[in-house]
Amino acid sequence: MAIGSVPGVAPGAVFPDYAAMIAVGLHRQHNVGMVGGAKNGTESIVLNGGYDDVDSGDQIIYTGFGGRDSAGQQIADQEWKGANAGMRVNLAHGLPVRVIRGPNGEKAYSPPAGYRYDGLYSVEEAWEKPGPHGFLMCRFRLEALDPAAGVAVAGISPPPIRRVAGTTLRRVRDTAMTRRIKALYKFRCQMCATTMTLPGGVSYAEGAHIRPLGKPHDGDDVEGNVLCLCPNDHLLLDRGAVFLTDKLAVIDGITGTLRGPLRPAPAHSIDVDCVRYHRGMFGY
Amino acid sequence: MAIGSVPGVAPGAVFPDYAAMIAVGLHRQHNVGMVGGAKNGTESIVLNGGYDDVDSGDQIIYTGFGGRDSAGQQIADQEWKGANAGMRVNLAHGLPVRVIRGPNGEKAYSPPAGYRYDGLYSVEEAWEKPGPHGFLMCRFRLEALDPAAGVAVAGISPPPIRRVAGTTLRRVRDTAMTRRIKALYKFRCQMCATTMTLPGGVSYAEGAHIRPLGKPHDGDDVEGNVLCLCPNDHLLLDRGAVFLTDKLAVIDGITGTLRGPLRPAPAHSIDVDCVRYHRGMFGY
Repeated sequence: MAIGSVPGVAPGAVFPDYAAMIAVGLHRQHNVGMVGGAKNGTESIVLNGGYDDVDSGDQIIYTGFGGRDSAGQQIADQEWKGANAGMRVNLAHGLPVRVIRGPNGEKAYSPPAGYRYDGLYSVEEAWEKPGPHGFLMCRFRLEALDPAAGVAVAGISPPPIRRVAGTTLRRVRDTAMTRRIKALYKFRCQMCATTMTLPGGVSYAEGAHIRPLGKPHDGDDVEGNVLCLCPNDHLLLDRGAVFLTDKLAVIDGITGTLRGPLRPAPAHSIDVDCVRYHRGMFGY
Repeated sequence: MAIGSVPGVAPGAVFPDYAAMIAVGLHRQHNVGMVGGAKNGTESIVLNGGYDDVDSGDQIIYTGFGGRDSAGQQIADQEWKGANAGMRVNLAHGLPVRVIRGPNGEKAYSPPAGYRYDGLYSVEEAWEKPGPHGFLMCRFRLEALDPAAGVAVAGISPPPIRRVAGTTLRRVRDTAMTRRIKALYKFRCQMCATTMTLPGGVSYAEGAHIRPLGKPHDGDDVEGNVLCLCPNDHLLLDRGAVFLTDKLAVIDGITGTLRGPLRPAPAHSIDVDCVRYHRGMFGY
């Protein structure tokens, strides 16, 4: 496996076909969209108009592989194995993936012919969702690590956050609303009851959105969609390692066991629709 | 208290004196460098060549207040109270601080006369350090939230990460070296022994630098300066709520109690100089 840039291949380089990409080590398997595996992560992907990818240049919603018959018809769920599972490794460890665009993708961002290397992207989210045919599809949200190098065409806005490869950024929102929720719980984690105290007597907790904000999930930034959590449980919620039942029990999604009730506050009403959306994202 | 932008006052606005700033609510106390408190955070600070601030435009190392006699001589340690303590509240909760530059600051970034509002900055770090006179000084690292608006003069580079006010970003580095350390510990936190498992059987931990990387701490990105920690303990280490003894015991800095030994791995040799530097940052 070779994660990251390939020496001698700069973003913007165009290759006539898969053989040419294989020759330089850019995308190391013939005629597959994703190269990678569950052990070491996914090293490269091709966007070429397949499935229902959403390509906005610096931001991509990418669909995993699998579940199609030889005619390209979706006949089964996609599974979290091979390069689909690999993308979760990238997400967990902040590993970048090489993005290559073919000629059949979104016109505004795709080369007219051949396959263009568009640089490194980070995997920001991984979840699953039924497609229009009813079968589950693995979905990924990617962001260009260096937007300047990432896309060889003009007109992309707004600029995303600049990162360096190998650095994961966890966004933690803190607004008047999330501060109100955190104060309501006295900064005590609603899942594990931890209270973190920092120097100066400052308490720390995070406002965690159950249904994610922003595209493509479009969760609301409202109290009913926010929990007061410690960083560990915030991460577990975001990655789908824990989920909530309709009655707000906390379930460990890996072992399937009950962790206990979500600690409630009388003045805080949690929106069950958000809880259901979150479960749906991770197949619970 | 009024954290954040002041309606009607745009970055770049220049005021002849403190009275003019007070009149619009930009900086609400006469002739002090910092306005804020331990309860609600610090709302505004003035850079005007005092103490040993380091002004690089979008990045500022700012020194707290206190410990001086009426002639401006440092005669005592600074203390974590008032607006110094307030900056820790900003750090914990992602609250921005208004930055105002006076005529006696770093020439490249300061107005020739009067006081210029330079927009919102985030508080990225808070620590303490003896000054040249031997007295402890409270120190803060700030970053412009919107570099375009943040400084009204040209020639600033490189552009920092763009954020929106109220969003805290935790940078988590993941390199071949940190992955090696995490694998060595099988992703088990060296402080609390937690192992976090994510969907797909992916384990998660973070490579935490003991002496921080980058300016002004200049820690090395080497194995001896890295621990394998869960996100909660990573945050506690970064903020100085835990520290290590020379013999690598983990001490809760808030209660002063022993949490236990740092779980060691035979192949991992931790640099005691880094441990000492970290203690020095937080007055342990």
